[in-house]
Amino acid sequence: MSRIVEITELALRDAHQSLLATRMALDDMIPACEDIDNAGYWSVECWGGATFDSCIRFLNEDPWERLRTLRKLMPKSRLQMLLRGQNLLGYRHYEDSVVERFVEKSAANGIDVFRIFDALNDVRNLRTSIAAVKKTGKHAQGAISYTISPLHTVEAFAAMAAELRDMGCDSICIKDMAGLLKPQPAYDLVKAIKQKCGSDTLVHVHAHATTGVTLVSIMKAIEAGCDIVDTAVSSLSLGPGHNPTESLVELLEGTGYETRLNKECVRRISDHFAQIRPRYREFFSENTGVDTEIFKSQIPGGMISNMESQLRGQGAGDRLQEVLEEVSRVRKDAGYPPLVTPSSQIVGSQAVFNVLMGKYKVLTGEFADLMLGYYGSTIGAKDPEVLKKAEAHAKKPAITVRPADLQKPEWESLSAAACALKGSNGSDEDVLTYAMFPQVAPKFFESRAQGRKNLGRDPGKEAPGAEQAAKVPSVAKGGAALSATVNYVITLNGREHRVTVAPEK
Amino acid sequence: MSRIVEITELALRDAHQSLLATRMALDDMIPACEDIDNAGYWSVECWGGATFDSCIRFLNEDPWERLRTLRKLMPKSRLQMLLRGQNLLGYRHYEDSVVERFVEKSAANGIDVFRIFDALNDVRNLRTSIAAVKKTGKHAQGAISYTISPLHTVEAFAAMAAELRDMGCDSICIKDMAGLLKPQPAYDLVKAIKQKCGSDTLVHVHAHATTGVTLVSIMKAIEAGCDIVDTAVSSLSLGPGHNPTESLVELLEGTGYETRLNKECVRRISDHFAQIRPRYREFFSENTGVDTEIFKSQIPGGMISNMESQLRGQGAGDRLQEVLEEVSRVRKDAGYPPLVTPSSQIVGSQAVFNVLMGKYKVLTGEFADLMLGYYGSTIGAKDPEVLKKAEAHAKKPAITVRPADLQKPEWESLSAAACALKGSNGSDEDVLTYAMFPQVAPKFFESRAQGRKNLGRDPGKEAPGAEQAAKVPSVAKGGAALSATVNYVITLNGREHRVTVAPEK
Repeated sequence: MSRIVEITELALRDAHQSLLATRMALDDMIPACEDIDNAGYWSVECWGGATFDSCIRFLNEDPWERLRTLRKLMPKSRLQMLLRGQNLLGYRHYEDSVVERFVEKSAANGIDVFRIFDALNDVRNLRTSIAAVKKTGKHAQGAISYTISPLHTVEAFAAMAAELRDMGCDSICIKDMAGLLKPQPAYDLVKAIKQKCGSDTLVHVHAHATTGVTLVSIMKAIEAGCDIVDTAVSSLSLGPGHNPTESLVELLEGTGYETRLNKECVRRISDHFAQIRPRYREFFSENTGVDTEIFKSQIPGGMISNMESQLRGQGAGDRLQEVLEEVSRVRKDAGYPPLVTPSSQIVGSQAVFNVLMGKYKVLTGEFADLMLGYYGSTIGAKDPEVLKKAEAHAKKPAITVRPADLQKPEWESLSAAACALKGSNGSDEDVLTYAMFPQVAPKFFESRAQGRKNLGRDPGKEAPGAEQAAKVPSVAKGGAALSATVNYVITLNGREHRVTVAPEK
Repeated sequence: MSRIVEITELALRDAHQSLLATRMALDDMIPACEDIDNAGYWSVECWGGATFDSCIRFLNEDPWERLRTLRKLMPKSRLQMLLRGQNLLGYRHYEDSVVERFVEKSAANGIDVFRIFDALNDVRNLRTSIAAVKKTGKHAQGAISYTISPLHTVEAFAAMAAELRDMGCDSICIKDMAGLLKPQPAYDLVKAIKQKCGSDTLVHVHAHATTGVTLVSIMKAIEAGCDIVDTAVSSLSLGPGHNPTESLVELLEGTGYETRLNKECVRRISDHFAQIRPRYREFFSENTGVDTEIFKSQIPGGMISNMESQLRGQGAGDRLQEVLEEVSRVRKDAGYPPLVTPSSQIVGSQAVFNVLMGKYKVLTGEFADLMLGYYGSTIGAKDPEVLKKAEAHAKKPAITVRPADLQKPEWESLSAAACALKGSNGSDEDVLTYAMFPQVAPKFFESRAQGRKNLGRDPGKEAPGAEQAAKVPSVAKGGAALSATVNYVITLNGREHRVTVAPEK
């Protein structure tokens, strides 16, 4: 008798997020739903921060309505979402009642499995959302953001898994967002978690295909007892995306492990997305091969191209290598945070500034906050010199409490602000949309009634307008010395950074 | 202490054959040679049938000169070639003295490792070339064409390996040309060969990436004791090509196995071909993803697209599925030959004819020869009914002797014919070029002095003339019944097929 390996299908969330800039419209998903529902997946990942953001920012689509539609079309499936702990789907720490309301509403609208992670692996940032999921009776999955550093040992990760289990998690996910998980660590980690938390603890592995090594790692994780594995149908797989579902199904033959997937259903799902994918050619990730350079910097490929364009915008397109090396140093100074949204952007941007303007001459507000504990705690100690600069920059002290403990109750004020917006329907869902994307939600509410947009274009037809280019103010290379401190907001790839540039003292 | 896994780099032969239609010019290889020579590879595959053919057919390049150049540029490396046993690099069985001369000249011009295979796994077709290699003192590698059928058991393959060892082979290769080798069979096969032939027998695994499973298979083969593995640098990897060198290097970390490759050299090689690859965009394999459908038909993806265009040319573009199913039946009728050049084309073309014109109504000359033993013996028995048709078609009996035993001494006549050609330089190398490609060599000899061509084009510049389209005569669907037997030659994707169409009786 073979042991069953369960599969989570990523086509509807992380696959198109990684390969098609999260632009896939609901209408291009709907025809595949019946087959997805029948294929025998353990769960169907279909919701998360980027899909939510993309819905309201680009697709004029209500993400809650998308969820309800998918719920209706896949009645037999566990629908899964990715939740950034206390950040929810946004970029700041929310007060607990907002987190509770979000989880409650997500469950009510259709989510069965909540995969909850924190960019810094600070479990205090997961506590409220895990408890909230447990209250709804849904599945709470605690995720470990996998990373490599001198401090991130197998023992340290297993200890975190035990904490997650003790907080009530129904399963543990090893979340490898950059394809860094190699076969032997995968094996050792799954073994250690099973040993530490009990062999009946469900272990779920999520690994991107970026480096070309992780399908082997998945095999090793399975050999070590991993219960559930994430894949994407082959037509939406590989590159910075994920390993192909069909390949995993096939390669297990004869090994003593098998999936319960129906190959014909999977083939039809894959055929569907093979037809859909060319419609999003404009949004393709350029790099669809294998990238092993990431083992050096740990910066995901997508982010490297962002950095490259940022550097080119500053007339420094040739300094990428310096920046990648600086990333390692900045990361060490910050106590070895894993590099995942938002810490990857924060560390990456700071490294760019360090290279362009001198070491910690310019601090982003986010980097100062990271240093000062406002995102949570990191596994390693902070560099004291950089910490001092961060305090001076931010004009506030370092903290050791859970960041959300500093938040005042905010539901009422968020609700009032949201409901006052033109086009808001007054629902809790709208309040949550506004809470998470206060800059984007007003415009979305106003235009929502015009119906959803599909940015896909059949090959051969004219492409829609190019994406809004990243707006980076030009800083003259070797320009005149500053005479006074200047504060400004840099919008970089759609995200705001508060930057202070001060003259040298 | 880790065990060393040795690596053969495929960039200069199979990688561009699989991904760029074998069009890469020597001048695009030369800048990478120093790094390849220093990287620490066990061998560098750089020569074979398709590269030879492409040199004289498309690149006006003397393949022997290419070999001598590579030899000079990589003095420290074992240069490796792929040899089709008694077929050498051509498509018929040569008389033994031609085989001996070819091996002698290949060794003299620079080849160190001869990987020798037979499409049918008939070891009688390997005997002469293995003996010839041994005579030169070079490395004779006997290859097993890996395939899946009810008769191709681990035991059968291990027995073949033992025969190859007994014939003097210095190593055994498991040659998986379609990505069919799954992890468990890979493990079992390496184990069985080591057990049957002795643990000091070098086992070398060659597996295409086509199905997305074989990097895992390679890991399993390594765990079972495999000594050498084929990979291609990442910029020339994946799709119908091979697994990325860098990924294998990285994934072994901590496993107790390691390569001896210098990562910096490998990165530079990969960077070089990343720059070169876009120059051959015109020749790209369209399918660069993963294809697991091949587990059903075993027909390589490249051949499927040939079949599709053949079918479209006959107004039957919608009948591919029928053809793929017919391939399985034709293969069984023919005694389960592995599907590799030329048997894949022979079985594939016959399946197309069966679907278009009725079951064995039209026999290709090659298929009749296959049925009658003129390519060698197959592992299974032939279907007696189809055998009878083949005898009637070919007007000759089935044979059981080694096909080359029917050949009369031919060196003198080949030599005379070659030397009479305009532009021939009278060397044995030219005689061999003519012997293997009698249709193409005359034109090549005549134009050789004009120097080699590079079909690569820098992106943005005008592409050269489109490739010669496949010439398939149109056969009217449901046309008038034939009144007499017609013989004609179909040139399909550059290969001639002698076809007889006879009226129904």
